[in-house]
Amino acid sequence: MTLSRPIAQAASALRDRFRDVRATSLALAAPLSAEDQCIQSMPDASPTKWHLAHTTWFFETVLLQPHAEGYQPFDPRFHYLFNSYYEALGPRHPRPHRGLLTRPSVDEVHAYRRHVDEAVLALLEGGVGEQDWAAIEPIVTLGLNHEQQHQELLLTDILHALSCNPLLPAYKPASGPALRLAAVPSPMRWLPQHGGIAEVGHTGSDFAFDNETPRHKALLQPYAIADRLVNCGDYAQFIADGGYQRAELWLSDGWAAVQANGWRHPAYWLASDDPRLGLGSQQQQQQQGSTGWHVFGLHGVRPMEADAPVSQLSFYEAAAYAEWAGARLPTEFEWEAAFDAPGITQMTGHVWQWTRSSYDPYPGFRPMPGIAAEYNGKFMVGQLVLRGGSVATPVGHSRPSYRNFFPPAARWQFTGLRLAKDL
Amino acid sequence: MTLSRPIAQAASALRDRFRDVRATSLALAAPLSAEDQCIQSMPDASPTKWHLAHTTWFFETVLLQPHAEGYQPFDPRFHYLFNSYYEALGPRHPRPHRGLLTRPSVDEVHAYRRHVDEAVLALLEGGVGEQDWAAIEPIVTLGLNHEQQHQELLLTDILHALSCNPLLPAYKPASGPALRLAAVPSPMRWLPQHGGIAEVGHTGSDFAFDNETPRHKALLQPYAIADRLVNCGDYAQFIADGGYQRAELWLSDGWAAVQANGWRHPAYWLASDDPRLGLGSQQQQQQQGSTGWHVFGLHGVRPMEADAPVSQLSFYEAAAYAEWAGARLPTEFEWEAAFDAPGITQMTGHVWQWTRSSYDPYPGFRPMPGIAAEYNGKFMVGQLVLRGGSVATPVGHSRPSYRNFFPPAARWQFTGLRLAKDL
Amino acid sequence: MTLSRPIAQAASALRDRFRDVRATSLALAAPLSAEDQCIQSMPDASPTKWHLAHTTWFFETVLLQPHAEGYQPFDPRFHYLFNSYYEALGPRHPRPHRGLLTRPSVDEVHAYRRHVDEAVLALLEGGVGEQDWAAIEPIVTLGLNHEQQHQELLLTDILHALSCNPLLPAYKPASGPALRLAAVPSPMRWLPQHGGIAEVGHTGSDFAFDNETPRHKALLQPYAIADRLVNCGDYAQFIADGGYQRAELWLSDGWAAVQANGWRHPAYWLASDDPRLGLGSQQQQQQQGSTGWHVFGLHGVRPMEADAPVSQLSFYEAAAYAEWAGARLPTEFEWEAAFDAPGITQMTGHVWQWTRSSYDPYPGFRPMPGIAAEYNGKFMVGQLVLRGGSVATPVGHSRPSYRNFFPPAARWQFTGLRLAKDL
Amino acid sequence: MTLSRPIAQAASALRDRFRDVRATSLALAAPLSAEDQCIQSMPDASPTKWHLAHTTWFFETVLLQPHAEGYQPFDPRFHYLFNSYYEALGPRHPRPHRGLLTRPSVDEVHAYRRHVDEAVLALLEGGVGEQDWAAIEPIVTLGLNHEQQHQELLLTDILHALSCNPLLPAYKPASGPALRLAAVPSPMRWLPQHGGIAEVGHTGSDFAFDNETPRHKALLQPYAIADRLVNCGDYAQFIADGGYQRAELWLSDGWAAVQANGWRHPAYWLASDDPRLGLGSQQQQQQQGSTGWHVFGLHGVRPMEADAPVSQLSFYEAAAYAEWAGARLPTEFEWEAAFDAPGITQMTGHVWQWTRSSYDPYPGFRPMPGIAAEYNGKFMVGQLVLRGGSVATPVGHSRPSYRNFFPPAARWQFTGLRLAKDL
Repeated sequence: MTLSRPIAQAASALRDRFRDVRATSLALAAPLSAEDQCIQSMPDASPTKWHLAHTTWFFETVLLQPHAEGYQPFDPRFHYLFNSYYEALGPRHPRPHRGLLTRPSVDEVHAYRRHVDEAVLALLEGGVGEQDWAAIEPIVTLGLNHEQQHQELLLTDILHALSCNPLLPAYKPASGPALRLAAVPSPMRWLPQHGGIAEVGHTGSDFAFDNETPRHKALLQPYAIADRLVNCGDYAQFIADGGYQRAELWLSDGWAAVQANGWRHPAYWLASDDPRLGLGSQQQQQQQGSTGWHVFGLHGVRPMEADAPVSQLSFYEAAAYAEWAGARLPTEFEWEAAFDAPGITQMTGHVWQWTRSSYDPYPGFRPMPGIAAEYNGKFMVGQLVLRGGSVATPVGHSRPSYRNFFPPAARWQFTGLRLAKDL
Repeated sequence: MTLSRPIAQAASALRDRFRDVRATSLALAAPLSAEDQCIQSMPDASPTKWHLAHTTWFFETVLLQPHAEGYQPFDPRFHYLFNSYYEALGPRHPRPHRGLLTRPSVDEVHAYRRHVDEAVLALLEGGVGEQDWAAIEPIVTLGLNHEQQHQELLLTDILHALSCNPLLPAYKPASGPALRLAAVPSPMRWLPQHGGIAEVGHTGSDFAFDNETPRHKALLQPYAIADRLVNCGDYAQFIADGGYQRAELWLSDGWAAVQANGWRHPAYWLASDDPRLGLGSQQQQQQQGSTGWHVFGLHGVRPMEADAPVSQLSFYEAAAYAEWAGARLPTEFEWEAAFDAPGITQMTGHVWQWTRSSYDPYPGFRPMPGIAAEYNGKFMVGQLVLRGGSVATPVGHSRPSYRNFFPPAARWQFTGLRLAKDL
Repeated sequence: MTLSRPIAQAASALRDRFRDVRATSLALAAPLSAEDQCIQSMPDASPTKWHLAHTTWFFETVLLQPHAEGYQPFDPRFHYLFNSYYEALGPRHPRPHRGLLTRPSVDEVHAYRRHVDEAVLALLEGGVGEQDWAAIEPIVTLGLNHEQQHQELLLTDILHALSCNPLLPAYKPASGPALRLAAVPSPMRWLPQHGGIAEVGHTGSDFAFDNETPRHKALLQPYAIADRLVNCGDYAQFIADGGYQRAELWLSDGWAAVQANGWRHPAYWLASDDPRLGLGSQQQQQQQGSTGWHVFGLHGVRPMEADAPVSQLSFYEAAAYAEWAGARLPTEFEWEAAFDAPGITQMTGHVWQWTRSSYDPYPGFRPMPGIAAEYNGKFMVGQLVLRGGSVATPVGHSRPSYRNFFPPAARWQFTGLRLAKDL
Repeated sequence: MTLSRPIAQAASALRDRFRDVRATSLALAAPLSAEDQCIQSMPDASPTKWHLAHTTWFFETVLLQPHAEGYQPFDPRFHYLFNSYYEALGPRHPRPHRGLLTRPSVDEVHAYRRHVDEAVLALLEGGVGEQDWAAIEPIVTLGLNHEQQHQELLLTDILHALSCNPLLPAYKPASGPALRLAAVPSPMRWLPQHGGIAEVGHTGSDFAFDNETPRHKALLQPYAIADRLVNCGDYAQFIADGGYQRAELWLSDGWAAVQANGWRHPAYWLASDDPRLGLGSQQQQQQQGSTGWHVFGLHGVRPMEADAPVSQLSFYEAAAYAEWAGARLPTEFEWEAAFDAPGITQMTGHVWQWTRSSYDPYPGFRPMPGIAAEYNGKFMVGQLVLRGGSVATPVGHSRPSYRNFFPPAARWQFTGLRLAKDL
């Protein structure tokens, strides 16, 4: 069966995109040793190697096994090992034990990836008729978006793992000196929005996840939204003003988390008397002579930059900051409606932005069909919506209608906030 | 200072209402022994005696100490013992240890109530000028609504405590035989609603909690809502159809709860082979000769009544049932908009009804001033809204705009569900 | 069947003793309200009411059901409720939930006791032939010793429960002022013992538990033993010298317990800045004007008495104190061999004394036959032997060969220490 | 300073031994990938890499820093990372987080070993005078014995880690087919021992740990001891006879462990329906056609060999087996006294043998001086003594007076049992 011309072109483009996305995953893992790629620092995080294998398993299970005739699985045991949470696909290796899988090795996982890559590319090359294309294309596209989500998780998870090492090693040394930022951060400005009926949710034929649909109308009160993100300088003032000691600023569960876990600052901030500063980065510290905050990130421990958006923040911290600032978090629809507001900046590419919206289904929401039904819908309780996209989000992966979501206590993602208020 | 006429009348009515509500609390505790009133069966529940004391503490702390000149506290140590969660009022006895307070005794708590009652009535009687009245009346009203909430909790909490006793004793024996209900429950009917812009939230000068305000417009899609609650007969079919074994019906957290806790049926249902049936109610069982479900409730263990609304259900179970039924839960605004829909029944007085709405703040929400700021707002994350009112809700306490809320795993309240669907 | 003369006399004496022991249990519970008698403050402790019922259950199950013809159980459900840990007798109410049994009430438990008492007395009165007597007498004697053990536990458990109440109420107010003790405690003296072969363990026909047998020879090195117990004044010096901050004094598990639980002093000591001193005993404190330690006990909170033996100590604390004092704990055989040593005091009636002996079986140990096999033997791992007897031990219950045992972290019993050292 | 002749010879021998022991550790790690060497499968186990580094740290800290003039630590941060439990040496990386140390890498740890090896060898070569020798030799010898202990732990810990991988990979494939053992195990024979006074504990000038001293007399009753270990065939009969379902065979804590953890057979046994048999060893299984037990070990999953000693057993299981067999475990002194008994076999080199002796100090016990004081003494509570030595114990490391010890629930060591009984 030969491909019709437009399908052939589309297939060729998809092959290119497939190669590109798959190569990016490997490139992200490249700075890491085999040991780094194996460990799991908490049940919510996964090893790098597991991300590399699971995204491959997704293509094998959802695309190749049902659609590629005669496909031979690389290793039938991987079906059990690398299923994440798909109940419909049977029992799986328990999530908290992913770090115990020293075998298969990183090398075997690479071989697994090559095996699956070849089969996917062959499928996209060869026998794709119109009907097949209609079935296959959405799955490949979903698989690539899925892999992009895991690219971000790969980074956040390894960053968490490295943060558990008292030496605080860098994922990747900074290639140059830290950007010299203006000493005085630009003041935040309020951008008034008139509210009214807004169209929200995804529309059009481009890919989007089911949780962004259906597009529908929402009614907004007049509000103002900040033109920029809350930055580290802002947040340091909140801390200095006793933010972590004042119960009245916190939601009840947030205050309980502060007390139970001894939170005193964002997860990756180091106070000037942190013993790890002496342990891991003596030279650095001496160079800086700094007595203030340090922040751990992908480039290791660096002196805090006041203008950089505050990150790795839980919803609880974001909400407490907003309360302290006499403001609030925007709802997800306020955020979406203001996406193109004149003067607004930092809407994507810096940090995911906590909203004051619980992760509930849209009116008329229907999960994707088949196995993918478990992709988003079953998590719609107890979580909060984040909007935007972060430095770790693959370019082109996010969009204004994108709904990211995490539980309110999560503080290992690139998550920060922007203020809003009633008018 | 003498009272102006209308205030005097209002004060007199408030005194009557105060006496009435306060007496009701005691009446609810009356069937219980001192031992019953002391125990705490889980951290989320409180002893009967604690409810009696805490509601009294509320009047003492929020009303009498700031507003009743020369008021002498009954016992200054009670300030520490009976504060529930008001951070602004200082440290307090830890919630999970309320059951360890054998002292003060029930008798002392009764004396505490009398002491405070007299002071409140004296305050309302005597020196209430116009200005005072404006300050005092809202606090007394809040305190009475607060006490009514605790009246329901008193019942749900003691029911939970009794459910932990393998003898399954009754809170109060049924005065007569169980109602002979029709063998075949009436079929549920769908009531179509056109949607559009609805006004939701509280309006008017009557009392309402801050979380019901401000009244605002919400945009609804067309939908249908069930004319009655899901009943035990309906729910038994869900169980018989493998409802508790089918992961695909459940939210992810719900399925985890099913597996972690071994849920197989609602919390207070007893399967026919439950050993406690043999232990606690031999005679009863023999009389019935039943091999089916039994249900534990305020009147002890009774054979399941198919027509009775299913109760003591978690949100997870409610959502799984709705999924199984090919429907969904209504949002809180769909529920509110349908309150007076022709043909609708059982909207209040049976069970609180889980909605598909997370407990988020209304647009423009402002907490009550002062200490009462902690009353509702700080709990607005991680919980779900329930609407309606239950058999345990004091008459006149609920209203269509009332927002009750509990975490999704809570299953010791009088909580059930009503179905909805898109049109 | 008539009783032979000596049996009749023995039976009469046993009836007297039975009445006496049973009455003592009720007398110990008498100062407590129904609420006090119901609660359980930790899984290791039991409610007063449960002690009263369980000791009764023991007579019913081990004596009456097998040996009293036609005996009708008071309530067959109690078999499940009041079994403690006898696996051979089937499933039982879970230990940590004993505090949830508000029913049966204290009154019902009293009725249960009367029912069983009458049946036991009737059995001892009436049809006891020689053969029956041989079967019955050891069970009654065991049951009485069992009840005496629970009399001590009743006191230690209610004391723990009251210690969890921030008001720190007294089990029983002191009848007079605290004993005026000498300001300077008498210095401790070492009593040298020559060691060699010692006979240890129980001998003779009087009652003893199986774990004290068989009597056998043990080989002791020369040692010295202290003439008196370590007292509160001694122990306060240990604290003042940083005893709870110096890891080198502690066994590894003990140090872990210190850190995990924040131990800074014995369980029932209150530092001068303890907020409960202000809460519960203002007057008392003012009277005393004391700024030092207070100790909570059966008479409530009292200023520490330097000469009183330190009590409610864990093995870990006892061992750390001994290390600090340049000494060690005696082994259980050193203790037993020194029981009658000239000059030795406080060997019984003050506190149980931790020994440096793990609770292992004696050579040739055989458990009691039948159900009583589970009485002692199955606990012979992970615990330490205590010797002596305490203020809470019923008079006549202990003896030099008596082996009490608790896990090393237990600190709610009347437990203290005496020093020993090598010669 | 030159060495006197005998010291020079001794130093040369010690250098050889040092090289030998250090090389053995690396050889044990050689079959493992960098990933294998990094993970930690439970808090009680440590990563291979950590063992390699910690044993090196021991030489660096206890030998080189105090005794090698001008020694430069390889990396001062390792002092924090690789201290195990020496409180006197300051804070250390928390034990449960050893698996999070992906850095330093295996290669860096190897470099660390070389650095320290060179310094130790230089110290032993060069300036060792008589006085220095007297100080240094015991430390080096202790360090080597310490490293040998960790060699065994390295094997038991990696075996546990591999057992957590559902693929059940082999530490090292068997070089040949499994030994063909006699189909019928030889019957066990009882060897009577007369008891009396026995000398126990270490004597002489060879190295021994402090916990084996002082040598002293112990008094033994007549007893019999089994001529061989309990083997897998024996143990399979215990299982088949309901051993894991019969509470009466178990100590109370053991029975609780059986129920809490669902124990049904030894930790590394696989029942014929174990899903991992299908997952990990299809070929193997088909070859065997076996429907019986399989056992996981250093060579991966193999069919159970009836004659092989049962291993990876907890004390609780060993004691329950002995009870079932109508026998008991020997005390540690019975075991030691029977070490050379005629006819006795398998006393060392197979499995460590649980004794019925708690790990208490010997009369007159004194810990080693200095830092080594924390080596053994502080663990003398809550553990049981094991005697003998296992297949994983380095040759020459054990001796008849050797006291190994583990908590009663530990079941990841090469631990089994031998029976004894009273005569």
